[in-house]
Amino acid sequence: MNALGRHLLLDLKDCNREVLNDLTLLRDATLFAAQRAGATVLKEYFHQFAPQGVSGAVIIAESHLSLHTWPEHGYAAIDIFTCGDTVRADVAAELLIEKLESKDPAIMEIKRGVLVAQPV
Amino acid sequence: MNALGRHLLLDLKDCNREVLNDLTLLRDATLFAAQRAGATVLKEYFHQFAPQGVSGAVIIAESHLSLHTWPEHGYAAIDIFTCGDTVRADVAAELLIEKLESKDPAIMEIKRGVLVAQPV
Repeated sequence: MNALGRHLLLDLKDCNREVLNDLTLLRDATLFAAQRAGATVLKEYFHQFAPQGVSGAVIIAESHLSLHTWPEHGYAAIDIFTCGDTVRADVAAELLIEKLESKDPAIMEIKRGVLVAQPV
Repeated sequence: MNALGRHLLLDLKDCNREVLNDLTLLRDATLFAAQRAGATVLKEYFHQFAPQGVSGAVIIAESHLSLHTWPEHGYAAIDIFTCGDTVRADVAAELLIEKLESKDPAIMEIKRGVLVAQPV
């Protein structure tokens, strides 16, 4: 089934709560994951909330990665949206699950932009 | 069912192809949608691809909006991820569908971070 985009939704429970509140670590981990997946990073922005929590987005030439954390619940929501065949979204997902030390990770894959072939 | 985040995935087919390649219009529309939905915008970044296509992200205090367009297919993938009860994600979705003039819009809603209540 041809799709323009591949979208991984990671729901990471039971993470390391200190990691979930460490903006620098999360930014470095997300950028590292993007690079190891073979993505081209265009821009990144991360924000530290008070009293806790971090949000971030990395725009890549092949779409984006985003991250939102709730340290008080040990939970992070991460999205890895890619297009084309060159980026290894699964590699980025595995690296981030490992870095956040999630003991209860779930990944959902959704195909975006499934186009019906035109009749010949 | 309690969830930390509410995530709308918009798959917009049969859009106005000129709109899908107009970075300024798309940025203005996304920021307007965020504001009308009651979100607090923290940062935005939009990128024009050659020969066509736009990617963008708006980080809001309540999570994010993202957008990727394929003018050659008349298609846009938009995500509206919110937390809390104050942001009207549905309002943002309706405004963006209207602005992109999609004649075949689909919306999927996914609850993110569904936490099992602790036994009392």
